[in-house]
Amino acid sequence: MKIIEGSVTSPIGFEAAGIHAGLKKAKKDMALLVSACDASTAAVFTTNRVKAAPVLWDQHVAASGKARAVIVNSGNANACTGEKGLIDAETTAEETAALVGTEKEKVYVASTGVIGVPLDMEKILAGARSLMPQLSKEGWKDAAAAICTTDTFSKTAAASVEIGGRTVTIGGMAKGSGMIHPNMATMLAFITTDAVISSATLQKLLGATVEDTFNMISVDGDTSTNDSCIVLANGMAGNDEIIFGDDGYEAFEEAFRYVLGTLAKLITRDGEGAGRFIEMQVVGALSDSEAKVLARSVISSSLVKAAFFGSDANWGRILCAMGYSGADFNPSLVDLSFSSAKGTIQTVRGGEPLPFSEEKAKEILLEKEITVVADCHQGSGSAVAWGCDLTYDYVRINGDYRS
Amino acid sequence: MKIIEGSVTSPIGFEAAGIHAGLKKAKKDMALLVSACDASTAAVFTTNRVKAAPVLWDQHVAASGKARAVIVNSGNANACTGEKGLIDAETTAEETAALVGTEKEKVYVASTGVIGVPLDMEKILAGARSLMPQLSKEGWKDAAAAICTTDTFSKTAAASVEIGGRTVTIGGMAKGSGMIHPNMATMLAFITTDAVISSATLQKLLGATVEDTFNMISVDGDTSTNDSCIVLANGMAGNDEIIFGDDGYEAFEEAFRYVLGTLAKLITRDGEGAGRFIEMQVVGALSDSEAKVLARSVISSSLVKAAFFGSDANWGRILCAMGYSGADFNPSLVDLSFSSAKGTIQTVRGGEPLPFSEEKAKEILLEKEITVVADCHQGSGSAVAWGCDLTYDYVRINGDYRS
Repeated sequence: MKIIEGSVTSPIGFEAAGIHAGLKKAKKDMALLVSACDASTAAVFTTNRVKAAPVLWDQHVAASGKARAVIVNSGNANACTGEKGLIDAETTAEETAALVGTEKEKVYVASTGVIGVPLDMEKILAGARSLMPQLSKEGWKDAAAAICTTDTFSKTAAASVEIGGRTVTIGGMAKGSGMIHPNMATMLAFITTDAVISSATLQKLLGATVEDTFNMISVDGDTSTNDSCIVLANGMAGNDEIIFGDDGYEAFEEAFRYVLGTLAKLITRDGEGAGRFIEMQVVGALSDSEAKVLARSVISSSLVKAAFFGSDANWGRILCAMGYSGADFNPSLVDLSFSSAKGTIQTVRGGEPLPFSEEKAKEILLEKEITVVADCHQGSGSAVAWGCDLTYDYVRINGDYRS
Repeated sequence: MKIIEGSVTSPIGFEAAGIHAGLKKAKKDMALLVSACDASTAAVFTTNRVKAAPVLWDQHVAASGKARAVIVNSGNANACTGEKGLIDAETTAEETAALVGTEKEKVYVASTGVIGVPLDMEKILAGARSLMPQLSKEGWKDAAAAICTTDTFSKTAAASVEIGGRTVTIGGMAKGSGMIHPNMATMLAFITTDAVISSATLQKLLGATVEDTFNMISVDGDTSTNDSCIVLANGMAGNDEIIFGDDGYEAFEEAFRYVLGTLAKLITRDGEGAGRFIEMQVVGALSDSEAKVLARSVISSSLVKAAFFGSDANWGRILCAMGYSGADFNPSLVDLSFSSAKGTIQTVRGGEPLPFSEEKAKEILLEKEITVVADCHQGSGSAVAWGCDLTYDYVRINGDYRS
């Protein structure tokens, strides 16, 4: 696998653009992503029972297995907007399809922003028309910026692999910030590849990979109405079709996992108001799934997150969050350590506290990137989850998001 | 039912005391509660897999069905303290039993405070000895103060009812503040009554009542290692035994529910750094249990809590939190309104936003006590949950609790 600089236009046959259409005051707020030909597609969407109109539209697109384009707006989520919202999503797909030269059923629509405000369709449709002539290979930076809301930086990743002598490339862009939680949250992610792969194989790979990447991050524990992870594979690399379980699949999976994992971690690093990036590793658990439950519980705990804000080696809160996770483990076997660029301290052995230097602990925890390792000493199950600290800024940003 | 001023010493035959034993710098940190005779007892404890030593001890006391005394310390949770912690809890029970003149198996031990630090047993045992001569009817105020940690006020409640011509009294005290969540959290509650009631009936009543009171509050979503709700019924009112389902039971249940509900709400009002008290009512749900899941999801959402801090009528976040709760409901039927002493505004009808005056909304939401009503229009299920806002102070208090 080769890591490359780039994003959704890195694979052959994809172009993108991003513009300011007037939904936000000044920042870019609409993006378009188009494949030169029909692409196999797969997608996963929010598990929230309250689903935004574009998600309901996109579920049909994903089910058909074929797609050509994705149109995205930020600034307005088109959620809780009733019948008009559904018509607006469909109309957006229709207009985009006409511009691209395809059927509306092959156009994904994604929205993110404020809930419960009808879309300004005049701006959306004018935006779609403005985007079309600006499509280019270089458009990925603008596109990645245009899908952001309270994000403080764009999130992109790309990688390539050799499959049967052909170079296959995967690129992606995402937006995150607040409301990020296991089970996907207000997160939009768009992944492109020029691989030859069926939508069924892609869906299987996507489901498994999301479980270990986007579903292992937490910013604040809320799962949103709009989150979507959409993949388009246009086959233009000309490789032999990737079949589940063959060598090509393995190589492709590695790069696919790298792109999704990188985007997931970038989202956590940019958690609303976040000052620290926390990696929670659980090893020695009874199974991988028990390890996942434990790791997610720790990174989702408000008390743990507040402790990291205060650079406090509060291992008791970590053990406590493992304890109420519902996972099967024996607290009296757990070892716990904290590490960062400044070193490592072990604070718990066999469920009991070890004496440690508070000064050293503070030095380690004042770093921006902290790793916590919990060893359950019960089996070979492991998992990694990513989170951030809970800060004054989180409260400030979310205290009056609408205004 | 008659609401009375008082607490755990309001029922006949109970005395209490609270002192500074030196576990905290200056504040009261140990309490003793004693019944004049053996009492029927019932209790519920944390569901956290990491249980503090006193909880493990108390489970045996509760199982025996009989108790005489409760000894409590704050400042140190005696959690994650290994074998020494277990011995310390038992030794505390033993010393207290000797002072009171009973067996150690009839003495509950409760601890709350920092995790992972061994108890200073010299101070604990000296404290027990100092408490004994100070037991009195008036000691409830000192006792209620001594069990507090980051609480900013003591939490007490009491009520009496007539059962078959006899006055039966119920009193209680609790401590809460952070780490309060459905499934009980770092909450200690001690309930006394002079009713004649079996421990089996008491356990049944306690389980059902906790479900509607302490399990319907949320401060920060963490469930602690130490939470316990312990009830002693010494029978000194001399009423005919309360039997499940008879008139006496109904009258007793009302007062019991009042005492537990009042303590639960006081805990929420005193949530760490909380500035606002939020009551979330769900009506018209498919069942009471679906309503409970919906109400709890809303009051547990960090985004909803932050919105209340900003006095923001962000109904979208409330619908969103209902949506990811896992409960069965139809979002497109939901009505939503906010109210306070300043009036009421409806913001959602049939799942869609209604126009409302932001000025009026702000006026309503600047109040300290806010009620949100969600009507699901699907059935007759209802539930009420209580929470608080998420504030800068929460982050500050929890950012460096240990120091």
